[in-house]
Amino acid sequence: MTDAAQTAFLDRLRGLVGASGVVTGEELRGRPASWTRPAEPCAALALVRPRDTAETSAVMAACAEAGVSVVPRGGATGLVDGILCAPDQITLSTERMTGIEPVDPLAMTVVAGTGATVEAVQGAARAAGLFFPLDLGARGSATVGGTISTNAGGLRVLRYGMMREMVLGLEAVLADGTVVSSMRPLIKNNTGLDLKQLFVGTEGTLGLVTRAVLRLRPEPAGYVTALIACPGVDDGARVLRAAQAAFQGRVSSFEGLWPDFYRLMTKPGRETPPLPQDYPFYAIIEVECVPEEAERFHDLLDGLMTAGTVLDAALASSEEQRQAMWRIRDRVEHMNADGIHRAFDVSVPLARMDAYVTGALARLAAIPDCRAVVYGHIGDNNLHWNTTRLDAAGNTAIDAAIYEPLAELNGSVSAEHGIGLEKRGKLGLSRSGAEIAAMRLVKRALDPDNRLNPGKIF
Amino acid sequence: MTDAAQTAFLDRLRGLVGASGVVTGEELRGRPASWTRPAEPCAALALVRPRDTAETSAVMAACAEAGVSVVPRGGATGLVDGILCAPDQITLSTERMTGIEPVDPLAMTVVAGTGATVEAVQGAARAAGLFFPLDLGARGSATVGGTISTNAGGLRVLRYGMMREMVLGLEAVLADGTVVSSMRPLIKNNTGLDLKQLFVGTEGTLGLVTRAVLRLRPEPAGYVTALIACPGVDDGARVLRAAQAAFQGRVSSFEGLWPDFYRLMTKPGRETPPLPQDYPFYAIIEVECVPEEAERFHDLLDGLMTAGTVLDAALASSEEQRQAMWRIRDRVEHMNADGIHRAFDVSVPLARMDAYVTGALARLAAIPDCRAVVYGHIGDNNLHWNTTRLDAAGNTAIDAAIYEPLAELNGSVSAEHGIGLEKRGKLGLSRSGAEIAAMRLVKRALDPDNRLNPGKIF
Repeated sequence: MTDAAQTAFLDRLRGLVGASGVVTGEELRGRPASWTRPAEPCAALALVRPRDTAETSAVMAACAEAGVSVVPRGGATGLVDGILCAPDQITLSTERMTGIEPVDPLAMTVVAGTGATVEAVQGAARAAGLFFPLDLGARGSATVGGTISTNAGGLRVLRYGMMREMVLGLEAVLADGTVVSSMRPLIKNNTGLDLKQLFVGTEGTLGLVTRAVLRLRPEPAGYVTALIACPGVDDGARVLRAAQAAFQGRVSSFEGLWPDFYRLMTKPGRETPPLPQDYPFYAIIEVECVPEEAERFHDLLDGLMTAGTVLDAALASSEEQRQAMWRIRDRVEHMNADGIHRAFDVSVPLARMDAYVTGALARLAAIPDCRAVVYGHIGDNNLHWNTTRLDAAGNTAIDAAIYEPLAELNGSVSAEHGIGLEKRGKLGLSRSGAEIAAMRLVKRALDPDNRLNPGKIF
Repeated sequence: MTDAAQTAFLDRLRGLVGASGVVTGEELRGRPASWTRPAEPCAALALVRPRDTAETSAVMAACAEAGVSVVPRGGATGLVDGILCAPDQITLSTERMTGIEPVDPLAMTVVAGTGATVEAVQGAARAAGLFFPLDLGARGSATVGGTISTNAGGLRVLRYGMMREMVLGLEAVLADGTVVSSMRPLIKNNTGLDLKQLFVGTEGTLGLVTRAVLRLRPEPAGYVTALIACPGVDDGARVLRAAQAAFQGRVSSFEGLWPDFYRLMTKPGRETPPLPQDYPFYAIIEVECVPEEAERFHDLLDGLMTAGTVLDAALASSEEQRQAMWRIRDRVEHMNADGIHRAFDVSVPLARMDAYVTGALARLAAIPDCRAVVYGHIGDNNLHWNTTRLDAAGNTAIDAAIYEPLAELNGSVSAEHGIGLEKRGKLGLSRSGAEIAAMRLVKRALDPDNRLNPGKIF
C-alpha cells in the first residue's frame, strides 16, 4: 500500500468507527504486543475499536476491499502469540464492546459483549444469585471473545467443561463482513451444523466473535478440600473416580502435584507442607457439596486409606487452610524464584500419564542444567510443565522431551492455551495430515483470501 | 447409469466389501425405508455394509468415482426422514461396525463402532461399573453413529448434555473417501478447529462417522422423584432453579405436563392421577442423590409450597411409585388411543415458554376438529406437541400454529430430532439466511459434489 492509499484507508476506517476508534502512532506503540511480551510494542498499522457488530462488519468489509488482514485483540492475555501483528495488518480490539445485558434468572443465561471481561461476567452472574463457572488467573483482563476464541479451560473444567460448554449462542463477523448471528439461548437446537462450534477455539481465524449468550449455573453451596498422597498417579485416578461416584460428578478440582513440584513449593520459607515431602505423588481434591456432606467425604478418604490407594491425607478444616492448600498449587512465583520459567501445557490420556511423566522426566534429567517440575489438572488429562530456560539447543531438547512422546500416546501439544504462532510447528504432533487438511478446507471456505488472523494455528 | 454400468459398479462394491456386504433386490426391498415408514421398502440401488473404516473409505471412493451419492443408515429410528433414499443412491449401513472395545475404567471412556447400539454401550459401561448417560426410547436400535449424526438428546440432557457432550473423539470418512481420524480420549485439546463438531448433528451430510471415543460417568447413586403442581410454567422454572441450586446441578429430569396432557394420561382406566386434575401446570422432577438427601428434597418442596410456587406435590416413596409417575409422561399409546398422532419437537427460550404455549393453544383451538396436548423437557427448553392428524389444509394450519411463532421467539423448529427431509421447509424459521449460507459454505468445502446424504437439512 502506498502512503497515500494507507492514509485514505485509515480515514475510511475513521469514518466507520469515529476518530477515537482508530489508534495509530505513538499511542499504538504504547500498547504491548501482548501480555507475554510487555516490552514489545504492538506492530500493527492501526488498532481499530468498533463499538458494535455493525461497525465490526463495516471494518471487516473495508479491510477486505483494501486487501488488509485483521488480527483480533481481546484482553491480550493469551500465552501462544495468537495476537501478534505484522506492520501491514489491522488489529481489531474488542475493548469498546463490553456491554453485559441483564441476567435472565429463570433461563440462567446472560448476553455479553465480546470485550466484557470474565470477571465482569462472573460479577453479573453473582449479582443475580448465579454463577459463571469459567475461571482463570487472567480473569480481570481475559474477555468473552478471547476465551471463546481460545476455548479457555482453567480451574473448573472437570465439573463445568471448557468455555465451549458455556456458550449457548454467539454472533460472529466473517472475513467479508458478513454477520452470522446465532444468538439463541437454547440448550437444544438440532437444525443443521452448530455454527458456533466453528468459532470456539479457532483463535479468530474463521470469524470475529462480537457477542455471546452464556449459560450460567447455580452458585456452589460449599466445598470440602483435601491434600492427599498416593503411591502414584494411577492411584490418584482411582481416588478421582471413587470421589466422582460418591459425589455424583461434583468433584470440582483434582490437581496432581508430582514430588519435585511439591517440594519446590513447600521449601522452607515458602508454603507450609501439610504432608511430608517424600511421597511419590500428591493431589489436591475439592468437591462441591453442602456442609453436612463433609463426613461422607472423610469416610471416603478413610476407606481409600485402608485400601492403600491413599497413603496420607490432610483436610482443610477452614477457608484459611483451604486457601493455604491452593497456594501450594498456584504460587507461580516460587517457580520463578528458582528460575523455572518455561511453561508447557499438554494433554495425555489418563491411562498413559504415568508412563509419559516417567519417560519425560528421565529425558529431561539427561539434559545438562535442566530442571523441570510437573503438575496439572489431571482429571482433565491436562499437565503443566515448568522448566529451566536454556540456550536454543537446550530449549529444543526440552521441547522434544515434552512434546515428542505425545504423538504416539494420542496426547495433545496444547490442552488449553491454543496454538497461535508459538506451537504452530508442533501441531503435526497432535493432528494428522488429514485433520489439518480438513481444517484448511473449512478455513478456505470461510476466509478464502486468508485475511482473518493469517498464519496462526497453521 | 446404464444397466451394464450399474452391474459393474455393484460388482466393484462386492469386491470391496464381499458379496454379503452388498444387499439388493428382494432382500433389500424387505427392509423398511425407516422406522416411521414400516410399509415402505428401502428404495436405494443397494445397501452396502462395510466392516470397518477402511472398507467405508473404499466404498465412498468408489461411489465418488461413479458419481453415486450415499445415504447413511444406522438404526433407522430417526423421525425426520433423514435416511430416505432415491433409486440411484447407495445406502451405507453401519450394521457390521458394532464392535465395542474394553472400557477404560480410569479414564472413564469407551471406544465404540458406529453401528453399536446405545443399549450395547450402556451395557458395556454398566459392566465396568460406569454409566453412559444418553438414553432414549429407541435405545435398542439407535446407534452410536446415528445418535452422533443427529446429536440425540433424550431423557437426561438437563444433567449430562446431548450426545455432543459425550463424544471425546471420532473418526469419519469424507465424500471422497478421505479418512479423518480424531480418536483422542482427551477432555482438553485446543489444537485448532474441533473437527468432531462438524459431524455431530449434521445428519451425515459432511462425513460418515465410523467410530467414536465416548465419555462415561459414574453410575447414579439413586433418585428422588416427585410430581408437582404449580400456578404456571414460570413457577415450574423457579422450582427447577431452586432444585438445581439446592442439589448442585443434579436435577436429572424436569418434565413439564400441561393440564390437557395430564388429564388425557390420567383418564379413568389409564394411569392413576397422584394429584387432582384441575391444576394449571404439572411437572415431574427427579434429582440424582443418595438416600440420606431425601429429607433435604422434602424440605425444599415444603418451602416452595409455603411460598406458593408449588401448589401441590406427590412424592414417589418406592421404585414402583416412581415408575408409575413416569408412565404418566411416557405412555404414548394413550395419545394414540385418543387419535393424537402427530408429534412435534420444538425449542423455546424458557422465559417465553408461557406466552408461546398460551398463544399456540389458542391458535390450535381455532382449527376445526383439532385436538392438541403439550408437554416436554422444559428444563432443556424442549416442548413436544401431539395433535390430531387432519387433512392437508388442517395439518398445514396446525404446523403454522406450532412452528411460525418460533421465529420471533428465537426458538427452534427442531430441538432434538433434526431436520432431515421432513423439516427442510421449516429451517428458515430457526436459521437466518446468513446462517444457512455459512452452513452451505462448509458443506461445499467438505462435499463439493453434494454426494453425502444430498437434499437433507437444506
